[in-house]
Amino acid sequence: MGNVIKNQLAGQEPSAQQKPSEQPLFLGIDGGGTKCKAVLMSNNNDILGVGVSGPGNPVYGLEEAIQSIENSALMAVQDAGMDAKVLADLIVGMGLAGVNIPSHYQNIMAWRHPFKKIYLATDLLIASMGAHNGSDGAVIVTGTGTCGFSYVDGKTSILGGHGFPQGDKGSGAWFGLKAVEQVLLTLDNIAGPTLLVELVLKQLKVKTGQDIVEQVVGKSASFFAQLSATVFTAANAQDKTAIAIVQEGAKYISDMGLRLLDTHPPRISLIGGLGPSLLPWLDDGIKAQLSKPLSPPEVGAVLFAKQQSQLSRTVGSFRSSI
Amino acid sequence: MGNVIKNQLAGQEPSAQQKPSEQPLFLGIDGGGTKCKAVLMSNNNDILGVGVSGPGNPVYGLEEAIQSIENSALMAVQDAGMDAKVLADLIVGMGLAGVNIPSHYQNIMAWRHPFKKIYLATDLLIASMGAHNGSDGAVIVTGTGTCGFSYVDGKTSILGGHGFPQGDKGSGAWFGLKAVEQVLLTLDNIAGPTLLVELVLKQLKVKTGQDIVEQVVGKSASFFAQLSATVFTAANAQDKTAIAIVQEGAKYISDMGLRLLDTHPPRISLIGGLGPSLLPWLDDGIKAQLSKPLSPPEVGAVLFAKQQSQLSRTVGSFRSSI
Repeated sequence: MGNVIKNQLAGQEPSAQQKPSEQPLFLGIDGGGTKCKAVLMSNNNDILGVGVSGPGNPVYGLEEAIQSIENSALMAVQDAGMDAKVLADLIVGMGLAGVNIPSHYQNIMAWRHPFKKIYLATDLLIASMGAHNGSDGAVIVTGTGTCGFSYVDGKTSILGGHGFPQGDKGSGAWFGLKAVEQVLLTLDNIAGPTLLVELVLKQLKVKTGQDIVEQVVGKSASFFAQLSATVFTAANAQDKTAIAIVQEGAKYISDMGLRLLDTHPPRISLIGGLGPSLLPWLDDGIKAQLSKPLSPPEVGAVLFAKQQSQLSRTVGSFRSSI
Repeated sequence: MGNVIKNQLAGQEPSAQQKPSEQPLFLGIDGGGTKCKAVLMSNNNDILGVGVSGPGNPVYGLEEAIQSIENSALMAVQDAGMDAKVLADLIVGMGLAGVNIPSHYQNIMAWRHPFKKIYLATDLLIASMGAHNGSDGAVIVTGTGTCGFSYVDGKTSILGGHGFPQGDKGSGAWFGLKAVEQVLLTLDNIAGPTLLVELVLKQLKVKTGQDIVEQVVGKSASFFAQLSATVFTAANAQDKTAIAIVQEGAKYISDMGLRLLDTHPPRISLIGGLGPSLLPWLDDGIKAQLSKPLSPPEVGAVLFAKQQSQLSRTVGSFRSSI
């Protein structure tokens, strides 16, 4: 990753890089259901390197998540041209889904990690800290899962984020599951054929209900989320079944947004990979309130670590152009 | 289990029991998502013993299913007052969900089982053979999962049965999942409070969304199915949310029944643990067509084994009063 892009991400002019041994180094981790992103940042908020690996959500698999975190961290360090042994010097801010649940929090904290120090937060807190550069605000997160979060005047509110399949309505996984349900109804001749069904069968390279079940049974949220783009493709092509699914999901996301506005956040942002697809389908009342996120969640994770470690006196002045 | 009940089950007068060593002994297995049932029967169709153990559906866990099958078989043998070593003499008819899928069929056939011989069929075929005593017919199975099956003039049709959560609409697991979804919406203040939510919270002994997620995340279909009775309780008490859920599930079951009637089965039965709860909610057109099942699926499994092994010359004449 070139320095130009790195500094665009941080929104700052290039500055003299201090030696890692002299200044603390920060690593931000955003562990999502599909990808785990890492960013290595200097004490001056320069982005030194980035890394992206596989699923980093401990709710769907602790070992896989830990592996993804370690991989993405190593990639970020290597991207910065540094040696792997620098991992032991890193102060890490880590945002992971599900760590608001005590058992998942304890699982991560029990991990014999390779870093100097870990500050663990929910994926939601680091997303909000990123989106609003450490200020109060709310975020609607729509990716593999969905969740609403606000932090206003020291009060945290969390909506949804209950995981797949019991919660996470309007998420990538939910859209994918709804698509598979619809295909199975059609193959059983209980619902009629639609473009959505045709596209999903093509994407999965299958023809019968039995083939589909063999492919999807016991599969994770991230597997189902791979089908969500197809639902939007079909909906945007005026497929009625797909439109009904998208409208049901978008209604839930809009309702969640309204509940978040009840907490009077100064800013509210729609973030996550599904955001651009969902945005046109949201209620106008919510759409009008949305502000662009300022920084990505992994940068929010660094901000969080800095606040927590009290090593930075300049958290409030950190600014990014994104 | 007393002889009176045993012979009521077989619908026959008590007959002289032949020594197991002289006549073939048959074991029928019905491996469902919640329970595995076994019945030990003589060559004369006397029921000698029965056994019931835990989940026997290989789709949700191969090892657990095999353990349940072995446990229920041993219980049936012991119930008949026989020694465990008689297991090695048994000709077994086994109906298991999911064995229409090649990988599950192969998993079971690779099992080094303790019996003389296994004849493996889907849970659907043995259910239909039981319900119609070996004659052509159709069954709507509504238990932990849901599925439709018909066997008419040598032609097999299967509808649904695609597993949880992607299929099995109108099943115990599906009703339980819908209930949990509703509770989470209410706890997030996105839906209003209802009797259903109150009853589910009471049953799960929890108060917050986080508590619920900790209880349900990654849980099997049989866990969710435990909540289905509560959905019907609430619906029967006129809870609107529960009624909407039950109506949606019952609509699917009715539609499945109509598709099965398209195959012109001489008889059609509604079977499975959820049948009595669902029956009042089905469309009148389907309700009028339903006939009482004649024998339970595990007896159907014995009929199947007898047909397959061609050891019985009297399969067609087997009759039961149930």
